[in-house]
Parts: sequence; structure tokens; C-alpha cells
Amino acid sequence: MHVINNSAMISKTKARLIHSLSKKKYRDKHGMFLVEGEKMVTELLESESGHAPPVKEVLATTEWLVENRHLPGLQESQVTEASADELKSISMLVTPQPVLALVAVRNEAPDPAILSEKTVLGLDAVRDPGNLGTIIRTADWFGIRHIICTPDSVDVYNPKVIQATMGSWARVRVYYTDLNRLLREPALEGKAVLGTFLEGESIYSRTIEQHPVILFGNESRGLSSGYHELVTRRITIPSYAENAGKAESLNLATSVAVVCAELRRGSE
Amino acid sequence: MHVINNSAMISKTKARLIHSLSKKKYRDKHGMFLVEGEKMVTELLESESGHAPPVKEVLATTEWLVENRHLPGLQESQVTEASADELKSISMLVTPQPVLALVAVRNEAPDPAILSEKTVLGLDAVRDPGNLGTIIRTADWFGIRHIICTPDSVDVYNPKVIQATMGSWARVRVYYTDLNRLLREPALEGKAVLGTFLEGESIYSRTIEQHPVILFGNESRGLSSGYHELVTRRITIPSYAENAGKAESLNLATSVAVVCAELRRGSE
Repeated sequence: MHVINNSAMISKTKARLIHSLSKKKYRDKHGMFLVEGEKMVTELLESESGHAPPVKEVLATTEWLVENRHLPGLQESQVTEASADELKSISMLVTPQPVLALVAVRNEAPDPAILSEKTVLGLDAVRDPGNLGTIIRTADWFGIRHIICTPDSVDVYNPKVIQATMGSWARVRVYYTDLNRLLREPALEGKAVLGTFLEGESIYSRTIEQHPVILFGNESRGLSSGYHELVTRRITIPSYAENAGKAESLNLATSVAVVCAELRRGSE
Repeated sequence: MHVINNSAMISKTKARLIHSLSKKKYRDKHGMFLVEGEKMVTELLESESGHAPPVKEVLATTEWLVENRHLPGLQESQVTEASADELKSISMLVTPQPVLALVAVRNEAPDPAILSEKTVLGLDAVRDPGNLGTIIRTADWFGIRHIICTPDSVDVYNPKVIQATMGSWARVRVYYTDLNRLLREPALEGKAVLGTFLEGESIYSRTIEQHPVILFGNESRGLSSGYHELVTRRITIPSYAENAGKAESLNLATSVAVVCAELRRGSE
């Protein structure tokens, strides 16, 4: 890309558009979400094409553009140069960065035939953006590519979720669908459906089933009763607290991590 | 406790004091920190005495006080009644609660003789309050009672840390001290010091040592080089990402959880 140090600026209309993307309503309307930060945007633009979701627009300082003009995903027609102050004024981060990108949202329906052969995480009404972001990052680390969220879960394109994934959002598919109905699809018949409960079988008692669906409940109320009949095995992370009645639970993202780690350890 | 529905109110001076406790400087000055929320305060006041840190003051609605007057830790001299609106105006929570407590900070020095027999987590410059809170909650679940933080770590009495622990702060000791010097104490000689690195030995390759110190580095830069020579074994959580170069790391609190879970599994 050829960088011209021109006087292009962020228009008020564009600044308003970017601000509006903190709300799901406007992300849906514009079909876009915000990715902030050098590390995340660079990683996104390093992908030649194909796999990474389409970048609609890049807003960056001239300095950043000169330094990163070699990035294969960076196209001149998509770039708006901006001063550090302008970027700061539209940033949602505490520490503003020299670049941000507007990226097209991906609204895919899960394919039961594909999921039947995969390890899948099912999240029932996950509410905390930090939790969902951390879960996506953890899934990426453990090679899990498919997460199903119930429609009342926090939106994956919420800026706090995207930031917490540290870039992993681009490599993990997060679907929003009626999880209960999905689990009843003929293609998923016979698939192990593990549910995490406080009083299940220890995850260490036997090797975790091949390519399971693992269901995790909401942060406060656990797994909705509607899923109980679909669960083929109830599992739990054993507590070693001296007074087990006290340490009441693990954080949701923590529980997901411990179960995913055990799944991978068992399959070694 | 006898509850009188009197007209006691939160004075401006007290409101200012409570506001100031969001800053470490003022927590140090007053020797107090804030615990908010029904669940956490109730749990605190359920302890007869002795183990739980001393509650200095409870601010609550009349309704809450009537309902909870049986709590053994609740003493009339410490109670200030307040309206829901008053509590809302001093709350640091998004969803204000009918009760909050001012609790005395605990500034203990770690005792090397005691630590020599215990599993200890060592945190080098942990910065994110949510991470430290989640680590404390995780330690509680896995029966780990001692966490050493370097002095440049986030303060355990930061309201965001306290909230993220979900009450576990009362059961886990968090010390702030020169970790590097502590590890050189004669009483800790021969203790296994495990350091978490991206390129260490898989945590699954052999059973984790008895009562180790496990060191975790800062969120961005990992474990400072000053600790490297003190580490008796470098450990890592293996990644199963298809493209391991991409999923660069796990969240810090996630890593702590996976290692603690493996430690307990191995000792079963």
C-alpha cells in the first residue's frame, strides 16, 4: 500500500457510526463491529484473505500506516488516516491505540452434520463479556473451534468480548441459536452431551468422551432445567476446599478452562 | 441485634470516606476497605469471630437489618441504617445492594516456616483486578491458602478484586512482599519452585511436586528474569491449537486454574 500523508480526517458522521457500534442494535444495523489495538488489527491484516472475516475499514495514524504498509490485508481504498487525538476520541479503550478496524459481522448458522464430528462448547445465557471473551481465547488454545451460545447470551461482537479474546475471535466460530433444539437434531443423535453441575461425576473419574458437546450454565443460576434431560452425563470439577460449603463455585470461564484442559489431557 | 427504625443517615463525611476507599492511598490511610453486596456481607457476618477479619461498620437498609438481625457478627454499635437511595449513591456496583461493610485491612507478613509446608502461588506483577480476584476464588476452590504478590501487583483490597473473589478473599491469605527475597529464605530451601513459561515441560508429563511454590508472570511480559534462576522446573500448559503460533497465550487467571486443577488431580 502506498501511504500519502494527506489531511484525511474522521468525519463526524463516521465518528458517530463508530461510537454507535458499542451497541448491539447498531452492530446489527450496520453489519459491522470494532476491533481495536495494534496487536489485534495487525494479526487480522496479516491473513491473506479467505479465512479472516472481511475488514471494511482501517483507521490509523500515518506513522502506523507507514510502518505496516506491507500487511497483505491492508488496502488503500479502505484506509482513513487520522491523528492520534482523533483516534483517542473515538476509542473505547483506556489506553488508545494507533489503529482500529471496522470488520463485517459473521452470522452463520451451525451445521449439525459438521458439529457431529467436533468438540463443541454450549453456553446457556453467558452474560459477562469478559467471561465469553476468555472462553473464546481458551477454546482457541485448546483447539476447540465451535461455541454455541443461546440467544440470550452476551453478543460476541461486544467490544469487551472482542478485547478479552486477544484475537482469538477470528479463529473460533461462535453461533447464536436455540441450543436446546439444536441438540435434538438427528445429526447429533448419539453424541455425548456433558453438563457441568456442582454435583456431577468428577471430571477425573474417567476419560472424557470423544467430541462431546459440553454445556455450561449461566454465571448465577447454572444450567437451565430444559437441558437436564438432554445431558448424557453430569460432570463436576471437584473442590479441595477445607470447608467445601464455603468456596461455592468457580468462575464460569475458569470452569470452562479446567474442563477443556482435562478433555485434551485425556485425549493425549 | 435489636433494630430500631430510626432516622440515622449516612453523613457527608462518611460518604466521602467510603468514596475515598476506591483508592489504595485512602485504604492505607484508614486501614479499611469496602465489601459490597448481600451475599458477601452476610457470609462475613456469619462467622462467629476469630477467623474472619474484623468488620468495622455495616451500612444497610432497615429491611435488610430486620431480616438479618440474627447474624452473629452483626453488632448494634457498628450499624448505620440508610435508605436504599443513600446506599445507591455511595455504591461502586452497577446494581446497588441493600448492605455494605467497612472491613479492617489485614497486613500480614508471610511466615517462611509455615509456607515451607504449604502450596503457594507466587504472582509477579499481576495487574488486572479481575484476574487477581478470580485467582483468589480459584485458590479457595482448590484449597490453596497462600498467595504471594510482588509489591507492584494490584491491591487485593481494590473493590474490583474483592467483588471478583465472590467472598473467597476472607479465606485466602494474600501477602505483598519481595517474592524474590522470600524464595531465598533458608526455611524454603529445597522447596520445589515451578515457573510457568510458554516453553516449559508439559504439566501432564509427571505428577506435580508436593507443596510447591508456583510462579506466574505478569499478563503481558511473563515472569521477570530475576526469578528464572530460582525456578527448579519450568512448566507449561500444552496448546492444542491447530496453528499453535496463533493462540498465543491463555489468560493469566485461566492458566492458574488449569495448573491448580492439575496439581490437585495429581495428588488424588
